[in-house]
Amino acid sequence: MTTRDPALDALAALLGESGILLGPADCARYATDVSGERGELPRAVLRPANTQDLSEVMRLCHRHGLPVVPQGGRTGLSGGASCLDGNLVLSLERMTGVIAIDPDALTLVAWAGTPLQTVQEAARERGLEYPVDIGSRSTATIGGTIATNAGGIRVIRHGMTRQNILGLEVVLANGTILSDLNELPKNNAGYDLKQLFIGSEGTLGIVTRAVMKLVPATTHANTALLGLSDYGAALDLLGSARRRFGPQLVAFEGMWPSYWDFVCEEAKLVRPPLSGRHGLYVLLETAHEGASGEEAFEAWLGHCLENELVEDGVIAKSLAETRSIWAVREAVGELDAAFGAHINFDLGIVPSRLGSFIEACDRALAAFVDCRSLHVGHMGDGNLHLIVSTGSRGPQEVHEIENVIYGLVGEWHGTVTAEHGVGTLKRHWLSRCRDESQIAVMTRLKALFDPFGRLNPGKIFE
Amino acid sequence: MTTRDPALDALAALLGESGILLGPADCARYATDVSGERGELPRAVLRPANTQDLSEVMRLCHRHGLPVVPQGGRTGLSGGASCLDGNLVLSLERMTGVIAIDPDALTLVAWAGTPLQTVQEAARERGLEYPVDIGSRSTATIGGTIATNAGGIRVIRHGMTRQNILGLEVVLANGTILSDLNELPKNNAGYDLKQLFIGSEGTLGIVTRAVMKLVPATTHANTALLGLSDYGAALDLLGSARRRFGPQLVAFEGMWPSYWDFVCEEAKLVRPPLSGRHGLYVLLETAHEGASGEEAFEAWLGHCLENELVEDGVIAKSLAETRSIWAVREAVGELDAAFGAHINFDLGIVPSRLGSFIEACDRALAAFVDCRSLHVGHMGDGNLHLIVSTGSRGPQEVHEIENVIYGLVGEWHGTVTAEHGVGTLKRHWLSRCRDESQIAVMTRLKALFDPFGRLNPGKIFE
Repeated sequence: MTTRDPALDALAALLGESGILLGPADCARYATDVSGERGELPRAVLRPANTQDLSEVMRLCHRHGLPVVPQGGRTGLSGGASCLDGNLVLSLERMTGVIAIDPDALTLVAWAGTPLQTVQEAARERGLEYPVDIGSRSTATIGGTIATNAGGIRVIRHGMTRQNILGLEVVLANGTILSDLNELPKNNAGYDLKQLFIGSEGTLGIVTRAVMKLVPATTHANTALLGLSDYGAALDLLGSARRRFGPQLVAFEGMWPSYWDFVCEEAKLVRPPLSGRHGLYVLLETAHEGASGEEAFEAWLGHCLENELVEDGVIAKSLAETRSIWAVREAVGELDAAFGAHINFDLGIVPSRLGSFIEACDRALAAFVDCRSLHVGHMGDGNLHLIVSTGSRGPQEVHEIENVIYGLVGEWHGTVTAEHGVGTLKRHWLSRCRDESQIAVMTRLKALFDPFGRLNPGKIFE
Repeated sequence: MTTRDPALDALAALLGESGILLGPADCARYATDVSGERGELPRAVLRPANTQDLSEVMRLCHRHGLPVVPQGGRTGLSGGASCLDGNLVLSLERMTGVIAIDPDALTLVAWAGTPLQTVQEAARERGLEYPVDIGSRSTATIGGTIATNAGGIRVIRHGMTRQNILGLEVVLANGTILSDLNELPKNNAGYDLKQLFIGSEGTLGIVTRAVMKLVPATTHANTALLGLSDYGAALDLLGSARRRFGPQLVAFEGMWPSYWDFVCEEAKLVRPPLSGRHGLYVLLETAHEGASGEEAFEAWLGHCLENELVEDGVIAKSLAETRSIWAVREAVGELDAAFGAHINFDLGIVPSRLGSFIEACDRALAAFVDCRSLHVGHMGDGNLHLIVSTGSRGPQEVHEIENVIYGLVGEWHGTVTAEHGVGTLKRHWLSRCRDESQIAVMTRLKALFDPFGRLNPGKIFE
């Protein structure tokens, strides 16, 4: 296999036939992620099978000046894995599998290319849980969830991916293997290096293996779908649920009428499990160990109804009912066809100010003709997915809508991305929530770890 | 006020009379922390009153080449705040107080010099809790707990300090103010810079303000002191408690007979709340919201007794009984006088291997005449405080004991410091748990943030 390019020939010799893809037909599906960002055809797709090979790949790329895009399952929503002109793709798809589980230490070690769901299932077989969970679990890889510090539906109890990682093995831009496969729950021996690589979207190093924290599997869950009068009531309900259930509260999802009506009535993506119109819909879930907590859950909810904190509600009484409740929330992943062209904002606003932020967005968007918004999100975390239709608008007009919304995010001291990451899609807007001194430190870190810009170039920073 | 030293004169002019101490009598108490490490008399103690002044101090120190030791409450146990020859002390003692609490967002903002207990009390007044807790809470400052990533007695539920910090304001070595006072539970907009400063012992920047996460106050706690046959039984009990109580388990402390007999019988520091001899003593606490959980706790414990997982036990039935149970564990802070000269190791070993590690330590220490060990620690986190008497041994012999223990730590893939930090005391031993590639990255980070070695020089690295 020769390519008339000495660098690619050297990589092909290193990786062997199964370790490199060169043909355009083979490479095409690696061009971008599910964000819809345009990606270029990779010059080649590198598929090392272990850390040593990946280290050699980076040494060769370093020597020949080749920029690489690390890729996991390509389920990212910000273009963080999209291939820019002249890039090679470095896929972790052959570095896959669970390596070890220690049920006493509550740890699991896996290769970065392992799908999230495989890790979840391996833990569950031992009566344990890896609590990070996102809709794309079957395709998203552990390495990708670490690179993007994935959030998801259980952050309110278990935190983001960062909180669930104990140790990492990472390959640096020059091929150095940085092994920090810490398994200890407490370790204050010098700087906690793994923190640098979590959430840095493959721009500082490539995660190859990870030690994850497990928790005992919960044995019972209580799920309810509630109709409330408005956001203020939802904030009160959140406070009440936190005081009553503390860390047993695992989900507190908010669906505004804009979203509810669209997925239940207009597009009919799901059947509404709750009748009547409400100012806000909340999906609330608690999880329990040992005992079901069902009585306490029902008593608390009864109390909330009596006090008119909640207008109406249903409690799931079977797995099927639990699924039909979650289906309304998860329909967000299926509305593309029905809703048409749109911007999917992933905003973070302090929960106490989220209600007024949404009102401000509505007012600002009224200036754009036929620009419709859906509102849904992880309300307990202040994470709003604001979905704004763009119709037949061109890039300039889309940019104007973004400019208005990200301007409000800046005024509200929010973040332009709560959980999806910056990638290419939001790099222009980073300065709306990070000041010059912060961006200066970030770029100095980037220069320290990747002085020649070989690791996922063009991501996070413009 | 002139000192015949232009740099000190400039600092005195900047800070005013109340902002600088120059006399040896005034400076003496700032020489070191409670680690017992020898500290030099500071050339001066700088006491800025706000971030802007602290930034100006660092600009002047940068210009004049003056190294500074940042100090909070000086309660550290590793010499991290000890003053080396020629250093100035930069005390945060005037930058104190809680700035804001947001009960909806569950956040608290405070100056770095605020005592931990002040923050805890401010949260409690609003029905909330700041869950980081350590014995020195009345003196230790928020800034110090952040710089050392303090652990303590509730890590098993709430994690180390790192997990409880949302945002930081930091002054860098050249005086730049890096403001990252993030209040959002989720924020993936670029690198998470605050992580660098948490646990880096003041060597990369000086924390001036912090945003902390609060949790709803727990309303009920159940505390028990249990006698077990051996470490294996304790591991089984830990697994059982985790499965039954999940995140409601807040403390799982282990006391070995060596420690128990010394504090209860020999030194009589406390009255034993449990009679009879056991192979291991466990202090276990659960915390609950809304309901007491008392019945469930008693039922679980009854089950453990029936299954002979536990030999004997007492459950606290009053606040006084809870205190008397905790007093046995907290006597570790009072044994200095009775036990004489000793080394206080702060080791971390994966919980499943901690039992065999202790046996190996005992075997190795048998080679040292009259060298007695006490064993106590946060068993649920694999954090062992191994206290080894040194009698009249000189530094060389003490070093030999350390060499043996830290050698075993390396073999067991443990850490030389689980929660106290490296400071000066453990910098020689850092390489027993961090490899060359890790230390190389740490020193490159240090060089990036502090190229002239002005921030807490001589700490962490040799």
